[in-house]
Amino acid sequence: MKIIRTVEEMQRTSQAWKREGRRVGMVPTMGYLHAGHISLVRIVKREAEACVVSIFVNPTQFGPAEDLARYPRDFERDCRLCREAGVDAVFAPEPAEMYAPDYSTWVVEEALTGPLCGERRPGHFRGVTSVVAKLFNAALPDVAVFGQKDAQQALVLQRMVRDLNFPVKMIIAPIVREADGLAMSSRNVYLSPDERLRALSISQGLDRAAAAFAGGARDTAALCADVRAGIEAAGGRVDYVEIRSRGTLAAVAAVDEPSVLAVAAFFGKTRLIDNLFLG
Amino acid sequence: MKIIRTVEEMQRTSQAWKREGRRVGMVPTMGYLHAGHISLVRIVKREAEACVVSIFVNPTQFGPAEDLARYPRDFERDCRLCREAGVDAVFAPEPAEMYAPDYSTWVVEEALTGPLCGERRPGHFRGVTSVVAKLFNAALPDVAVFGQKDAQQALVLQRMVRDLNFPVKMIIAPIVREADGLAMSSRNVYLSPDERLRALSISQGLDRAAAAFAGGARDTAALCADVRAGIEAAGGRVDYVEIRSRGTLAAVAAVDEPSVLAVAAFFGKTRLIDNLFLG
Repeated sequence: MKIIRTVEEMQRTSQAWKREGRRVGMVPTMGYLHAGHISLVRIVKREAEACVVSIFVNPTQFGPAEDLARYPRDFERDCRLCREAGVDAVFAPEPAEMYAPDYSTWVVEEALTGPLCGERRPGHFRGVTSVVAKLFNAALPDVAVFGQKDAQQALVLQRMVRDLNFPVKMIIAPIVREADGLAMSSRNVYLSPDERLRALSISQGLDRAAAAFAGGARDTAALCADVRAGIEAAGGRVDYVEIRSRGTLAAVAAVDEPSVLAVAAFFGKTRLIDNLFLG
Repeated sequence: MKIIRTVEEMQRTSQAWKREGRRVGMVPTMGYLHAGHISLVRIVKREAEACVVSIFVNPTQFGPAEDLARYPRDFERDCRLCREAGVDAVFAPEPAEMYAPDYSTWVVEEALTGPLCGERRPGHFRGVTSVVAKLFNAALPDVAVFGQKDAQQALVLQRMVRDLNFPVKMIIAPIVREADGLAMSSRNVYLSPDERLRALSISQGLDRAAAAFAGGARDTAALCADVRAGIEAAGGRVDYVEIRSRGTLAAVAAVDEPSVLAVAAFFGKTRLIDNLFLG
């Protein structure tokens, strides 16, 4: 497995693969890999003969009060997991390789980034779309896989790929959960044992919503109120619980089109997100 | 010569060329081709074994009061000129192929687009960077050539390519002029014979500035004042005459780094631009 540190070497490597007729698949990550990331690698490997995992804790998608400095990192372990999963190259540039001192070009998506995390984390999605455009131009993937756990991110990036004509097939992969239901996230390591237990109120709320939806419930306010109540009863601080159209991320009063029930909540200082596709 | 109307066909065509080991060169244009464009084709053909000319009058780079509706077009003639110049494919999408009704993703450059045309044409460069990103992702060029006539555009696009890691070699090609010195432009067709004659004051002013610079003149204000006076004496309305750093487009008091003397002026209703690289 190659470990690649520069954009130029990544481009040369990918171009060489393509000349050999290999399709290139990519899993962009911020590292500290878990079983959710590895599930994305498995999906990519079904679609492409060469698999790149990028590991880059992208500074431009963190707000000034957010957790950039303490974001968990373990590059040796990440490489071992990638090697075991059959990854062909890890692309792990330093921030200075990605952002020149006079860096000045941004990719901005202006429709789907307004609500939810876009409203709570100003500048976050502009950092995400810009870095993913850069990662795509470095690794030149034919296919890329993103987890549904970051649902708004996945929808925003699908829109970016469509709008900017990136020649990339986008796949949104199912959420991978711990045995007890907690959505896997590199940030789960921040949780104390007590917070970890109380955080289950998120996935339990989504389970109840899924059952209610299966039973015919369509009223957005009632579905959201139940999820919110469960999180608050467990001592969580809700950032948002909303149901929105998956096509436009517009608010919907009733679930009569493909929608997403999206949750963000704090347990202690740790902000967790999770979601459920409805319809 | 292929005429390609869809992004998907353009991508497939370019990917097939690359698999054959051909490098792909691109000349993005808005059509109504003149000898300046054809000079760009000749440069591309020295660098690449497959040459694409895109012809797309990009609506998003025109302001509401600008000349989108009357921008000159002659697709048959453009195709004939491209065929004669040995172009392999003309990529000529319709606006609806490039911009979905809910299009929402933009590429914005925030440092070099502030002054000069960026100040006078709000939104112009965001349209330019976005469409060139799209054209690059459609034609997947290894090399692209832009004319120095649109100097700020060329510098902004070089910055975009660097910042977003586009795997594209950027070439800025010299300005091609009519026999009497007028910089070639599709918009020259707007000029009446009288305006056409008076517009020569622009290139004549740049010639005087070049001679003064060669003779040791370095004072920005004096160099600009002379160019401005010549245009105004000819009845032109100056939009700007400025000398700025080619690296940063910051204003410079004296020409002691690579700089550009940039001019925009109206003759009648027609806005012309021209420039001179200094140092």
